[in-house]
Amino acid sequence: MNSIVTLTTDFGTSDYFVGAIKGGVLSVSANAKIVDITHHVPAHDINAAAFTLFAAYQTFPKGTIHVAVVDPGVGSNRRPILAVTDNYFFVAPDNGILSLIYENEQNVRVYHLTNDRFFRFPVSTTFHGRDIFAPIAGALAFGVGPDELGEEIADFVRFEVAKPRRVDEQHIVANILHIDRFGNCLTNLTIDDLPLGFHNGRFKLEINKREITKFQNFYSETSKKGELFLIYGSAGFLEIVAFQDSAEKILKVKNGQEVKLVSL
Amino acid sequence: MNSIVTLTTDFGTSDYFVGAIKGGVLSVSANAKIVDITHHVPAHDINAAAFTLFAAYQTFPKGTIHVAVVDPGVGSNRRPILAVTDNYFFVAPDNGILSLIYENEQNVRVYHLTNDRFFRFPVSTTFHGRDIFAPIAGALAFGVGPDELGEEIADFVRFEVAKPRRVDEQHIVANILHIDRFGNCLTNLTIDDLPLGFHNGRFKLEINKREITKFQNFYSETSKKGELFLIYGSAGFLEIVAFQDSAEKILKVKNGQEVKLVSL
Amino acid sequence: MNSIVTLTTDFGTSDYFVGAIKGGVLSVSANAKIVDITHHVPAHDINAAAFTLFAAYQTFPKGTIHVAVVDPGVGSNRRPILAVTDNYFFVAPDNGILSLIYENEQNVRVYHLTNDRFFRFPVSTTFHGRDIFAPIAGALAFGVGPDELGEEIADFVRFEVAKPRRVDEQHIVANILHIDRFGNCLTNLTIDDLPLGFHNGRFKLEINKREITKFQNFYSETSKKGELFLIYGSAGFLEIVAFQDSAEKILKVKNGQEVKLVSL
Repeated sequence: MNSIVTLTTDFGTSDYFVGAIKGGVLSVSANAKIVDITHHVPAHDINAAAFTLFAAYQTFPKGTIHVAVVDPGVGSNRRPILAVTDNYFFVAPDNGILSLIYENEQNVRVYHLTNDRFFRFPVSTTFHGRDIFAPIAGALAFGVGPDELGEEIADFVRFEVAKPRRVDEQHIVANILHIDRFGNCLTNLTIDDLPLGFHNGRFKLEINKREITKFQNFYSETSKKGELFLIYGSAGFLEIVAFQDSAEKILKVKNGQEVKLVSL
Repeated sequence: MNSIVTLTTDFGTSDYFVGAIKGGVLSVSANAKIVDITHHVPAHDINAAAFTLFAAYQTFPKGTIHVAVVDPGVGSNRRPILAVTDNYFFVAPDNGILSLIYENEQNVRVYHLTNDRFFRFPVSTTFHGRDIFAPIAGALAFGVGPDELGEEIADFVRFEVAKPRRVDEQHIVANILHIDRFGNCLTNLTIDDLPLGFHNGRFKLEINKREITKFQNFYSETSKKGELFLIYGSAGFLEIVAFQDSAEKILKVKNGQEVKLVSL
Repeated sequence: MNSIVTLTTDFGTSDYFVGAIKGGVLSVSANAKIVDITHHVPAHDINAAAFTLFAAYQTFPKGTIHVAVVDPGVGSNRRPILAVTDNYFFVAPDNGILSLIYENEQNVRVYHLTNDRFFRFPVSTTFHGRDIFAPIAGALAFGVGPDELGEEIADFVRFEVAKPRRVDEQHIVANILHIDRFGNCLTNLTIDDLPLGFHNGRFKLEINKREITKFQNFYSETSKKGELFLIYGSAGFLEIVAFQDSAEKILKVKNGQEVKLVSL
């Protein structure tokens, strides 16, 4: 238990929302150390939140409490949950936002947060970030155990995570997993998915009727603005990058769309 | 005393200003725990800052030091002040930014911060956030008492806070108190202001020649993009909301404008 | 050693990058106190980062660890460095980002961070903020000494910092050092550079074929929107300001451009 509480939300930083969540954590556990991951997840974009949390969570020390609140169903009957893995706690609405965590972790127990003794009253119908998720994170930071907070469940919401699929000897169909603020487009291809000749340049990546045939080890290997290439991104995935430009805009990439990796 | 220091400002997060304020707090009290409420109050908008602080401050634990700096009169003869309530400290310019706190709290003592021994020297004429408010917050976090910081005053600046007023048996005139980043429009109507038939749907809310006749308990009760309805917002006020859209834009709402609640 | 770690980057706050850096610091030293200066340095703008860090760093207590990551050359052979001054540590890429620190401090030792025992593995070619700079900051916060982290070097990258120059008895040519988010334009003129008659109003400042002839002690001394004047800014430099407007836009100012101060 280190009492670090991270926040990943779509509340933005212009309103009082994030301040109220932080106050909600601290008024239960004044020693909690709150760390913003981001509050700029696109509004209601559960997939983007899932990716952001996934890409950051393992850099934190064991015992960290990760709170993720992108919650279009707030106030309805969607459940508030706690997921416990070998190293971390995750506090979130049960809407699939933890799908990549479920996918990546060996041991996950999920609890429905039913013990309202730990909620902030009155619980609003519009802001569970403040009234449920924050005080629960505070309770965990204070040392309260999962069993005191609710009941284990098995039927939590879990999205299918798109995986690259080999179509034939020569073709792999993959997907765009995420587009970052620089316009870099992350595919769901990891190093293990790449065909044998890839690192000898025997490949082309097809996307929106364009072909990318260059792989670079780092960004500044080129110096030609707008040049398109592939790179291993820091999140562990193959990325499509345009030097000092936006690959998203140049290629008109959409999140989730297919790309095709062809061996030559 | 918990040494939590919150910040509510219009300095944005692109410049060095917020960093310098944090440094200014920490160099007086390295143990202070600094929490951003927001730095994106619209420039010089004292009313918006007052609302944001009001909506967040009570979620923090007793002893928290709230610093609010929206300060168009910096360098002039406007006074730096400290307000002390039963549970909190407020450090701010004396320009009305604490009006909603004065309104909401039973016991408030206000001090003019006259003891420049606690300021950072040289005190600039343009950045009292760094040179006065930050070190004063640091001093409070360190345990310095209000009486050491200045002299109690009674003539502090206090804005009139608009209240809903009953025009006749059927009509209440209220005001728009705040518009959030989603375009939700908060009125100054609380549950106690609502007429008897309201929760049976016997009402219409008139705003800019449009009528809103629906009340919802939570956002996702509808699924029709742009549908207008009323909801109890998390700050305790009746809000005008458009599902997955901006009520502000649809209705062309202006902050402070009147709305009329009609009993049917 | 106070274990405060500040961050100045161009990573923005929309992606997972900043969260991963914070996690990277905290997983080495869970007691580190992380303070954001800004993550909104314009992408790859080393000069802007240098200014922002310069304007904020001295407000922090002795022992603070300042991390600055604007790093277009990440993955290439540019070196990661640690600069140690009498009061602070600076962790950064060796690309000139610390030039204003070198200029301002009497005693600076610079180390090439060669001891990869303190890096996060595998070290990516695209995100040394997470894999090198964060864990090094964590190690410093933990108490590891500079000599354990690398070897002292003398050939670090250092930009020439433009200084005002006196052309003749009457004329000083200066430069725009920084433009802030309000459109205020900071020159590199300090109070020591100003000619004798300046405070008696015997001057004009020429910029882009316009003349500014007014000096104010503080912002609200005027009340005329768009009025141009000079002021001593909080960073210690003479600033060109437009009341409630953007001097940058009115005068079409570019960062680094020349301005001429004429004695009358």
